[in-house]
Amino acid sequence: MSRIVARPLTREAFAPFGDVIEADGTVESFLINRGKCRRFHDLAKVEVTGENARVLINIFRGEPYPMPHRLDMVERHPLGSQAFMPLSPRPFLVTVAPDEGGRPGTPQAFIAAPGQGVNYARGTWHGVLTVIGDEPQDFIVVDRGGDGNNLEEFYFDTPYVIVLP
Amino acid sequence: MSRIVARPLTREAFAPFGDVIEADGTVESFLINRGKCRRFHDLAKVEVTGENARVLINIFRGEPYPMPHRLDMVERHPLGSQAFMPLSPRPFLVTVAPDEGGRPGTPQAFIAAPGQGVNYARGTWHGVLTVIGDEPQDFIVVDRGGDGNNLEEFYFDTPYVIVLP
Repeated sequence: MSRIVARPLTREAFAPFGDVIEADGTVESFLINRGKCRRFHDLAKVEVTGENARVLINIFRGEPYPMPHRLDMVERHPLGSQAFMPLSPRPFLVTVAPDEGGRPGTPQAFIAAPGQGVNYARGTWHGVLTVIGDEPQDFIVVDRGGDGNNLEEFYFDTPYVIVLP
Repeated sequence: MSRIVARPLTREAFAPFGDVIEADGTVESFLINRGKCRRFHDLAKVEVTGENARVLINIFRGEPYPMPHRLDMVERHPLGSQAFMPLSPRPFLVTVAPDEGGRPGTPQAFIAAPGQGVNYARGTWHGVLTVIGDEPQDFIVVDRGGDGNNLEEFYFDTPYVIVLP
């Protein structure tokens, strides 16, 4: 089984796969509400398409996975983006893969720092929500509802093993 | 100044103003990811309209307000809903008002429990993000981008005083 070392999640490294959702000095922000609130503005490209498409807000409650993580499948959503933002400031594991002719290529893994979330661009291969640590973790998830098939799954012949740095 | 006592935030009490975003047994949920994740499904009505409308994901970093809270204005967004979900499990203050002929009526106040967020329905009068306690708090905010004027503000002649129960 191939071994993949997770890297710190950065906007640059993740750019081919979507957006990193985080509040830091590198994104556009401005004060609102008479100076009492800073708005970190438009952090993710939300995209939904297809029949009766609409944007959903959900909460996902993920159970933790043991590390090292055995990645045996990835999935993608051809009709919409999917954003995950943790509701408690703890790290989680993010796995993605480039598309190679309709199949996932070699995966890449990232550790989201506390306060970071991700938005998978429409059609991006990614592993399922992968909580790490000892406890379940809740996420706000912004994705697509509507008609049509918005899920493709791909099972690897040989799983990958994801390890923390 | 009139005094308003904040009430616990419940889906029923908040229904005229929008959605309570929370993971509990009363909403539709189902297991996904081979049983490792529970999806609390479609918790808020996201609505954006008008020219070049699209859904934005932002982070708002709010400074705390002293309590009791002096509510001297409310605002509304005629072109879109606006959802607020705290990124740390702490309570915050939610103020809303019914519309009475294009002006806000008497406000109502709610305390969101840890793990609760809100989605203001399109056109609902509400106070600005009101963090309480000793520290700033981050929220994921799902609202509208696009052209056109999406903000109306209303200043009360006499402010209201919001107190905790």
